[in-house]
Amino acid sequence: IEAEDAPALEALLDPLHPADIADLIEQLDGRDRRALLELAPSAVDGDVLSELDENLRDAVIPQMAPEQLAEAVRDLESDDVVDLVEYLDTAQQEAVLDALPASDRVAVEKALAYPEESAGRLMQVEVARAPEHWSVGEAIDFLRSSPTLPDQFYHLVLVDPRMRPVGQATLGRILSSGRDALLKDIVEDTFITFKVTDDEGDIARAFNQYHLISSPVVDANERLVGVITIDDAMNVLDEEHAEDMLRLAGVGESATISDSTFETVKQRFPWLIVNLFTVNLAALIVGLFDHTIAAVVAVAALMPVVASMGGSAGTQSLTVAVRALATHDLTSSNALRVIRRELFVGLFNGFVFAAIMAAVGTFGYGNSLLGLSLALAMITNMVVAALAGVLVPVLLDKLGFDPALASGTFVTTTTDMVGFFSFLGIATLILL
Amino acid sequence: IEAEDAPALEALLDPLHPADIADLIEQLDGRDRRALLELAPSAVDGDVLSELDENLRDAVIPQMAPEQLAEAVRDLESDDVVDLVEYLDTAQQEAVLDALPASDRVAVEKALAYPEESAGRLMQVEVARAPEHWSVGEAIDFLRSSPTLPDQFYHLVLVDPRMRPVGQATLGRILSSGRDALLKDIVEDTFITFKVTDDEGDIARAFNQYHLISSPVVDANERLVGVITIDDAMNVLDEEHAEDMLRLAGVGESATISDSTFETVKQRFPWLIVNLFTVNLAALIVGLFDHTIAAVVAVAALMPVVASMGGSAGTQSLTVAVRALATHDLTSSNALRVIRRELFVGLFNGFVFAAIMAAVGTFGYGNSLLGLSLALAMITNMVVAALAGVLVPVLLDKLGFDPALASGTFVTTTTDMVGFFSFLGIATLILL
Repeated sequence: IEAEDAPALEALLDPLHPADIADLIEQLDGRDRRALLELAPSAVDGDVLSELDENLRDAVIPQMAPEQLAEAVRDLESDDVVDLVEYLDTAQQEAVLDALPASDRVAVEKALAYPEESAGRLMQVEVARAPEHWSVGEAIDFLRSSPTLPDQFYHLVLVDPRMRPVGQATLGRILSSGRDALLKDIVEDTFITFKVTDDEGDIARAFNQYHLISSPVVDANERLVGVITIDDAMNVLDEEHAEDMLRLAGVGESATISDSTFETVKQRFPWLIVNLFTVNLAALIVGLFDHTIAAVVAVAALMPVVASMGGSAGTQSLTVAVRALATHDLTSSNALRVIRRELFVGLFNGFVFAAIMAAVGTFGYGNSLLGLSLALAMITNMVVAALAGVLVPVLLDKLGFDPALASGTFVTTTTDMVGFFSFLGIATLILL
Repeated sequence: IEAEDAPALEALLDPLHPADIADLIEQLDGRDRRALLELAPSAVDGDVLSELDENLRDAVIPQMAPEQLAEAVRDLESDDVVDLVEYLDTAQQEAVLDALPASDRVAVEKALAYPEESAGRLMQVEVARAPEHWSVGEAIDFLRSSPTLPDQFYHLVLVDPRMRPVGQATLGRILSSGRDALLKDIVEDTFITFKVTDDEGDIARAFNQYHLISSPVVDANERLVGVITIDDAMNVLDEEHAEDMLRLAGVGESATISDSTFETVKQRFPWLIVNLFTVNLAALIVGLFDHTIAAVVAVAALMPVVASMGGSAGTQSLTVAVRALATHDLTSSNALRVIRRELFVGLFNGFVFAAIMAAVGTFGYGNSLLGLSLALAMITNMVVAALAGVLVPVLLDKLGFDPALASGTFVTTTTDMVGFFSFLGIATLILL
């Protein structure tokens, strides 16, 4: 379909949802993508651009003619334009901004003045609001006559005379109440506002925690400046999850399946270098015991068992801890109890696997002292793994680092080193 | 605060959001939790129960008196009751159901008849709907006089005479249109319905993909039976993410930071046993080369370097692939391109790390043939790691298994075995 020129392509794309068109573009390779942009420029409108991956947007926007770009962004709401341009380079940003009507341009520039990943960037500035003393009837008449309502809104925000939000009523309650009912009598019980500087991740978790649908955003003077809706919060939650998962695996946080080879290398290389360094340190530890290995070659075969079991157990407790830190379920008030639990789990696993490996050493390798060394090292490393799995992310979090980012390397380095050192050290004492 | 008896406790809990009370209960240990339930039974209402972790709910519900439980669940909507009871054992489920009014009980039992994790369990049966030919004015009059509207709703669903949904209008559009406007003229462009049997994970991703707020659910005859709202979808998305992350690390999918020691062991033990088995297989491979190790002891120290680098690189591509499979960004149409990219990334990383390790072998260990063996093995294992990281999850997915569940073990087992075998094999050929 891609090779031949056609308005058939436009006809094909037309009924699709912008998100699906974006997915389709993401699945094409570079050449087909350029062909598509030339053949069916009108299919790539602002909505499609918003749905595209950041990395691809950087590639697609320079390929679009200026007037095509202007056409594309004209109908977007302010928060979508902000989302679109915030990670573009300055020249591309200018090109998009120039295409906007003056008033929208001011709104977008104002939003870009807020810090990255803050409420100020996430919110839309179009808000349906009403004075706190209005009745349902007045509100309906106002909404009917108002030309500049947002595309989608779920609450009417009540503001005091100084524009501070004091509550919000769901449209459902407004529609099902009589015209005489006062708005302030039908406001929702749960009313939470965010500051423009609040972190978008915290906001997304609050939306999930309190089942919010939309929430007002206030500036430093407590005045209403915008509103955040749950679909944006859901998107942020989704992104934060992906980042946590990718960071835990030592991959750049914005990695996607459609990245180029070069981008992929760039995202993964740094952590592999760190790993290369730490595992060479572990090799130095093994090197200390060359006499033991020369004397009993089987220890060389069995030392990865102790290290690997520690690595697996450490990764298990680490993952639970990182997730709990992200959801604020692991706090200083229960950290001690969690550490105690991990200690017991480590001890239990350690003794079970010690028994199994003692049997493997004794019967599989015909050396009961080797079995004893394996058992003792296994208990040591399983306990260390369980504790490191909690302590490392908790400490990183306390020190202000992202626990997902560096924990994995720290924990597996620890379990490798402790695994090798304890097994080879104990084997040296017992076997030689 | 917990030790002393007090109505002060109730006063303290009263202003808190149910989700916060639930978090608080999750942070208490078993004894304090029982004390809280006895001291302030009224604080633990249905909303708090819904917010509690599944595992804790099992523990808390038997501790509540039947009338206390009845009181707690009476005010919940049908989907919340379903969510509450679906994982309870039969006796507890009966106790909760008995506490419900007859009509609610029927709705809940009907929902429980749908498969687990399906739209039927997730939806609420209370729907705001209207005949397709109504005007805005008729709709408003109907909503005002209707006694059984859902607590929260965002759309009015239009149905044909056979109760099949044909479109939906946002409350915002209804409120801002004149009374004479026809509902069917103001319906939303994007209109997606789900079947009662659809998987909740797919639904959550569709909500995120298409920015849905609420969507009708239809039965096998295309008739409207309920509605799913974005807050439930967001919750599902959050849970699915947590499950993916935990499964990747080999932890039971429902693991939380407040699980007991026994539950924690139960969740983690199976994968550790699998790992113990596979790593002992790897040890057997090492054992094949005992002559090589006895001759050049340094290979024992360096073999974990090759294996560990492969494990890290494999985990990186694995994580990106699992995430892309979950979001349906990795499909058969781009799988080949992704595999090709991983191959290049693996080759590039392999050559770079081969060069570094050749230097380490030559200068660090004073043996250039050892360096050459390291380099060749490193290239081999990095390519295998990159390919296994994509192929294993893709194949598991094709075979109908959850790619997050078993990929990690498969990939690290592969990289361990290939790492040991290639390095020791090459070293045997070159060095002996």
